[in-house]
Amino acid sequence: MSRRNVAILLFPEVEVLDFAGPFEVFSRTRLDPGVESRRSEETAPFRVYTVARTGEPITATGGLRVIPHFDFDEAPSPDILVIPGGFGTRALLEDDGMLAWLRRAAGGVELLTSVCTGSLVLARAGLLAGRRATTHWGAHDLLEAIDPSISVDRESRVVDDGVVTSAGVSAGMDMAFHVVERFCGKDVADETGRYIEYPRLPGAGLPAGGPGRAPTGR
Amino acid sequence: MSRRNVAILLFPEVEVLDFAGPFEVFSRTRLDPGVESRRSEETAPFRVYTVARTGEPITATGGLRVIPHFDFDEAPSPDILVIPGGFGTRALLEDDGMLAWLRRAAGGVELLTSVCTGSLVLARAGLLAGRRATTHWGAHDLLEAIDPSISVDRESRVVDDGVVTSAGVSAGMDMAFHVVERFCGKDVADETGRYIEYPRLPGAGLPAGGPGRAPTGR
Repeated sequence: MSRRNVAILLFPEVEVLDFAGPFEVFSRTRLDPGVESRRSEETAPFRVYTVARTGEPITATGGLRVIPHFDFDEAPSPDILVIPGGFGTRALLEDDGMLAWLRRAAGGVELLTSVCTGSLVLARAGLLAGRRATTHWGAHDLLEAIDPSISVDRESRVVDDGVVTSAGVSAGMDMAFHVVERFCGKDVADETGRYIEYPRLPGAGLPAGGPGRAPTGR
Repeated sequence: MSRRNVAILLFPEVEVLDFAGPFEVFSRTRLDPGVESRRSEETAPFRVYTVARTGEPITATGGLRVIPHFDFDEAPSPDILVIPGGFGTRALLEDDGMLAWLRRAAGGVELLTSVCTGSLVLARAGLLAGRRATTHWGAHDLLEAIDPSISVDRESRVVDDGVVTSAGVSAGMDMAFHVVERFCGKDVADETGRYIEYPRLPGAGLPAGGPGRAPTGR
């Protein structure tokens, strides 16, 4: 079977769940249901890896230390690119080399995505111009300030306007499930939700505007 | 302020979200609300670190590579010990050295916890004897088989019967929030949930017995 490459960017002070949540969802998705199918990659529709500027270990927020799979030069071309958030995004906003890499990488992908304040970096790179997008609730105003042509959605947990952005931290898992559903269908996404026991339910009792906002449509 | 040490065990083929979810929750908890308090450790009630048999990098499920903070000999004494799950737990069930370490470590902690199939390892070490406990839905029968004196709760997302166990994978975050609430109160747990935008709501529209089961009481 053909597999889509999912590259997840790592950088110093990336928020742990911002990258680990989508890593979990994409890497545990299987086209065949159940526990046994998860023991091999046979029916895995995604090949998931982390990428960073160099191959040196990255210290994430809270001190978790992760070794990237690839540096920028060695990384396979991604089909789906995930830009997580975290306090470390603030340095990326002024990092011309990173922004140039991001523009190049984004130009070649099938789908560009972000979690939390990862959308600030996309905005700075000009990749959200004229689109609806979201971010962590603490950064709504900053997203708007970076690029006033962005229509900032302050209510939705996941916004898909060509580029898929999500609200804060744990909403990255909903973003990932949205992408799984887009490429593999709702049954596969729901079954993967059941495997990792993530309450992926329409609405799911999540109040509008609160910490658990429901995903918007495509 | 005094801080509780939270040690999270790593081992080959540990499930990513099983350790990264609790790492995120415990490490981002602050006694002061808001975004700014998360920029320092000043009001952090927990000191969170990973521990493994050696300091060598661990390859988790899906291939994520993590460098443990401490090996068994160097690790500070934990107040709270978190045993995650994953396919790698099966090898631990036959690993006398690991089981001996776990019994020793568990003897010194204030609170012993597990995520997903981490409870299988606790059971094998004799640490769940006579207690109510849970695990991933795919391992309910195995938990019961390992120690028939355990009362396996097949409905709850989090079970606190002295030792705190949780259902599969993402339920580890609910386990962590339960522990945060137990030590720091509901306001601190809820505010941390809001910070990471995790829908931590009583019931939260989660159906009984489904992938999103509501936590039970203490």
